[in-house]
Amino acid sequence: MTDFAKLDGGQRVVIENVQPQIDGGRFPVKRVIGQSVDVEADAFADGHDALRCVLRYRHDSETGWHEISMVSIGNDRWGAAFPISELGRYLYTVTAWVDHFLSWQHELARRTDAANIAVALQVGAKLIDEAAQRASGDDQVQLQRHAEKMGSASPATGKQLAMAEVLMSLMARHPERSMATHYPIELVVRAERVKALYSTWYELFPRSCVGEDMRHGTFSECEKRLLAVAEMGFDVVYLPPIHPIGMTSRKGPNNTLLASEADPGSPWAIGAADGGHKAVHAQLGTLENFRSLVAKARELGLDIALDIAFQCSPDHPYVKEHPEWFRHRPDGSIQYAENPPKKYEDIYPFNFETDTWSGLWQELLDVFRFWISQGVSIFRVDNPHTKPFPFWEWLIGEVQRDHPETIFLAEAFTRPKMIYRLAKLGFSQSYNYFPWRNTKSEIEAYFTELTRTEVREYFRPNLWPNTPDILSEYLQFGGRPAFMVRLVLAATLGASYGIYGPAYELMEAAPRDAGGEEYLNSEKYQVRHWDIGRADSLKDFIARVNRIRRESPALQQDHSLRFFDVDNDSLLCYAKATLDNKEVILVVANLDPHHTQSGWLTLPMEELGLDAQHPYQVHDLLTDARFLWNGARNYVEVKPQAVPAHIFRLRRRVRTERDFDYFL
Amino acid sequence: MTDFAKLDGGQRVVIENVQPQIDGGRFPVKRVIGQSVDVEADAFADGHDALRCVLRYRHDSETGWHEISMVSIGNDRWGAAFPISELGRYLYTVTAWVDHFLSWQHELARRTDAANIAVALQVGAKLIDEAAQRASGDDQVQLQRHAEKMGSASPATGKQLAMAEVLMSLMARHPERSMATHYPIELVVRAERVKALYSTWYELFPRSCVGEDMRHGTFSECEKRLLAVAEMGFDVVYLPPIHPIGMTSRKGPNNTLLASEADPGSPWAIGAADGGHKAVHAQLGTLENFRSLVAKARELGLDIALDIAFQCSPDHPYVKEHPEWFRHRPDGSIQYAENPPKKYEDIYPFNFETDTWSGLWQELLDVFRFWISQGVSIFRVDNPHTKPFPFWEWLIGEVQRDHPETIFLAEAFTRPKMIYRLAKLGFSQSYNYFPWRNTKSEIEAYFTELTRTEVREYFRPNLWPNTPDILSEYLQFGGRPAFMVRLVLAATLGASYGIYGPAYELMEAAPRDAGGEEYLNSEKYQVRHWDIGRADSLKDFIARVNRIRRESPALQQDHSLRFFDVDNDSLLCYAKATLDNKEVILVVANLDPHHTQSGWLTLPMEELGLDAQHPYQVHDLLTDARFLWNGARNYVEVKPQAVPAHIFRLRRRVRTERDFDYFL
Repeated sequence: MTDFAKLDGGQRVVIENVQPQIDGGRFPVKRVIGQSVDVEADAFADGHDALRCVLRYRHDSETGWHEISMVSIGNDRWGAAFPISELGRYLYTVTAWVDHFLSWQHELARRTDAANIAVALQVGAKLIDEAAQRASGDDQVQLQRHAEKMGSASPATGKQLAMAEVLMSLMARHPERSMATHYPIELVVRAERVKALYSTWYELFPRSCVGEDMRHGTFSECEKRLLAVAEMGFDVVYLPPIHPIGMTSRKGPNNTLLASEADPGSPWAIGAADGGHKAVHAQLGTLENFRSLVAKARELGLDIALDIAFQCSPDHPYVKEHPEWFRHRPDGSIQYAENPPKKYEDIYPFNFETDTWSGLWQELLDVFRFWISQGVSIFRVDNPHTKPFPFWEWLIGEVQRDHPETIFLAEAFTRPKMIYRLAKLGFSQSYNYFPWRNTKSEIEAYFTELTRTEVREYFRPNLWPNTPDILSEYLQFGGRPAFMVRLVLAATLGASYGIYGPAYELMEAAPRDAGGEEYLNSEKYQVRHWDIGRADSLKDFIARVNRIRRESPALQQDHSLRFFDVDNDSLLCYAKATLDNKEVILVVANLDPHHTQSGWLTLPMEELGLDAQHPYQVHDLLTDARFLWNGARNYVEVKPQAVPAHIFRLRRRVRTERDFDYFL
Repeated sequence: MTDFAKLDGGQRVVIENVQPQIDGGRFPVKRVIGQSVDVEADAFADGHDALRCVLRYRHDSETGWHEISMVSIGNDRWGAAFPISELGRYLYTVTAWVDHFLSWQHELARRTDAANIAVALQVGAKLIDEAAQRASGDDQVQLQRHAEKMGSASPATGKQLAMAEVLMSLMARHPERSMATHYPIELVVRAERVKALYSTWYELFPRSCVGEDMRHGTFSECEKRLLAVAEMGFDVVYLPPIHPIGMTSRKGPNNTLLASEADPGSPWAIGAADGGHKAVHAQLGTLENFRSLVAKARELGLDIALDIAFQCSPDHPYVKEHPEWFRHRPDGSIQYAENPPKKYEDIYPFNFETDTWSGLWQELLDVFRFWISQGVSIFRVDNPHTKPFPFWEWLIGEVQRDHPETIFLAEAFTRPKMIYRLAKLGFSQSYNYFPWRNTKSEIEAYFTELTRTEVREYFRPNLWPNTPDILSEYLQFGGRPAFMVRLVLAATLGASYGIYGPAYELMEAAPRDAGGEEYLNSEKYQVRHWDIGRADSLKDFIARVNRIRRESPALQQDHSLRFFDVDNDSLLCYAKATLDNKEVILVVANLDPHHTQSGWLTLPMEELGLDAQHPYQVHDLLTDARFLWNGARNYVEVKPQAVPAHIFRLRRRVRTERDFDYFL
């Protein structure tokens, strides 16, 4: 019910449906430095009066608002954009008002009756005079002069005076906004660094970075591997947990229940006598060695990302120091992790329903703060969906307030709404269903959801064709072409992607169990000695793909992804373009790793800025081959045994005797 | 940023996307008595615990909430419905919590290890004992017994005890809800009477209800016409303004500028020396005559709807009494209505930007209150989009608080977002673009928007094939079939529809100007003598269509409208069904008023509850013809010169020697 006392009858403008907007403004939209926020709103008033509509925005740290005039884009919708140039939070909202001067001007232009115009000029003079009273200095003097002239002008002269540019800009500078409507919500943008959007991840187990005669790798050995990773074109190196590993119920190779003395255990069984989440595993080295690794990585343009897994081995110091953070069973034992009938006796989950949750939360926040103090600014969070959602919103907010450069990757392989909620709460990037989207219709449907719906405003997918937990059937049975095409898909469908190596570039494909997705002899439970120099390694192919990403701004974002029709369900075709449409990258991938596939694809010529009257060139950046195409329909053929995909750059005009420059 | 002090770490459930919901709960959804509200919500918690989720609702006048358990419908979505049985406002929201007993039960069922089960039974006994402490009386005693039995049971017995129905319902009655999550918004339903949704309108000018030797009709003559209107099956009689008509600048026939003494003027030029919006035009009769008309109408099951047009003739008493409610021009004159270069010198609009707007608003509210006191409860509001939006929200709220039976029809032929905003603000029904939706693709697109999107929650279309302002080209050129088919479309596409008569049933088709939509010799400016007994009148056809509406609940709502494929663009096919799908009405209309059209239509058999193995019957309620159809595809042929549409009722099984009853 309307509260009469709070109304102002003169406030006539309605503002609705301001976009982007997540859940009524409950959550921020996400951007990175250098991007902009395109804001649209419905704004209208009763009757036929003209409106003015402004987008207001400010960085959290600023007290005043910046204003940008919004432009009418039809059907009572208005649009404007503002730039993101600093880390942190931006606020934006919309204000609109009835502009009586504009309305008067529009009506005056249509008036034909001289007596009528004469009266209208008096009305106009009054409006201008009122603006003069709102102005000061030179503007005031000028407006007063305009008002006088208007009041004494002939109908014909008055109509001309009313349209003068100088008068319009003076009036626009001194609008009557006392009855303006302010959209009631201040919407929020979370502004992050570019890597939150565009990043190229490589996961490796430092303990498998083994030098000669070593049985367990170290940070120092790992440091030596960084160059090879950088040369493949990655910019984030992600390490599974590096903390002391528990002895109690330690798992042996291939997840067997009884480990021998020599077995290193799972890095996710965190905590032993010598420390927990803020300590490093002694066999890997010291904290100093770790800092050296971080420094070396930085030299090579790499970020070290740490895995934060909030769970404890029975030997974790927390278990003794804070028994109240765990769930106790009636027999006095502590509740281990389980998913009946499966038991994980080497893992104690935290009891987030403990009465002492606030101490627990603060300590877990402190874990992040500790590693930030060691130079880490990217975290991969293990199973965030098994900890309360409000905890993450609070924790990420706390961290990013002091360290807005921090990036959080959510590893929540769970139900869709839980995955999306975590993204809304603040995770910068998210694992997703890419590993299980293998057919054309699956890929088109899923990536359309991710890039063409409101999801794209808060959810940034990071695409992993494999992880230590996921060796997909497609990779198990597809051979080398499968590894190549899944890499191309990950690297071009996603501005962010990652691989778990060296298993990936060495095309490790043997599962532990038939029908399962676990690796045989998984590094999760044992040290592996990888021959990274193997002749058949995909490292050069990966390096090429990553160089294409680096050189193609179109591939460094996801919002422009579009799928195109090909008359063969084994061929997938899509494009990404830069905002200005100058660069278009077109991918044609053969999803069948066993057979050559061919077909006719249909391109939307106008959308791609192509001219139906002229041939154009597509340049395959993988093979350097160039093809001359004509019109919307063109033939493609992809042989998986050679290269299972094309990554074309479009060249819109082709050199003739009259055109000596390529024209991008 | 999360405020740590306001958090409770144990509150783990997330509730999102509660539907229906208009603009984040800013506006109510609309229902009528007898309907229900189907509520859905996403609810989920971290981890794998089981949830319980309840829909809470109450009528505004109740203090306590009713609760209905919501049922999981997949993908973390929950659903339940509540009934609407009283006028006024209902509130609804959702509460959900982690149910540790349910989680325990689910896990117990999957446990296999005896030692493990033994411990779990102790955990269960504790949960049951805690519930006993929340309960009292018999429930408490019973729960205590269950706890004891559980604590001492063998693994096998314990597993059985845990699944006992009686225990489950006891536990469900005493849940632990201290950590429940409450959806933060209480959403609103505006509950109106059935006529707000399902109504059949007939507009007539009482001054044209002329007896022998009369030059100007009266309320009393009008009263005599009501029976004919009721016999055609209408239930609302809508009268253009009945107030004194101004003399100054009065318009003559066909909107000519100079009226003679004898010309009656436009009823929308409201107000003269003898009164304004609360008075009746003396030539029509007295207020007493009007009350008699209202009473007679009620006897016949008719509501009298009044036209409220907030504008004044220069002779309106307000002009003298409240000059501050009008806009004054610099030459001292009052600003008349205009849309340059057009001028409407017989109309003064109110200046809603006046400083004394609150007095103006109160007086206009009083106009409604006055007519409500005279027995009127349905109002057609003229051009509401030229008055401020907040005014209507306030006014309708004020009226409906005291008179929740009041129905408001918005006559806003303007841009889509303004039309929708007025509906959100409280108008029960709305005029719409139906008069200009004549082709199959136009009709399908528009009615899909109205009935299959969130628009349907707040916008109730009232379909008018003609009005005194709109004689569409389709009617001008289509002859009798055009009048028949547009009536069928209005009456079956819309739960509410209306015609402006007797112009409609007498198929008045001559426009004032070629290319225009004004009637020649429009009743807006002159009295018309209609021969309502004319042999070619459509009154019997209209009566038949309205009887079909009355006998078919499927046609008394709009949410179930579905369009079906016909391979001929002149044939339009759609169905409406009751909620239980028992009654299905199928319409096939020929949009070409000149030629017989035929084609094959395709029905979604399963959706319509039809069996592909058996023939079914379609019974044309307009002609009483019956057709035996088989399978999804059937041939239809519609001759406009006979009846330009079929209105079929589906009979799902056809009588055979084994089935002696029709089976609806």
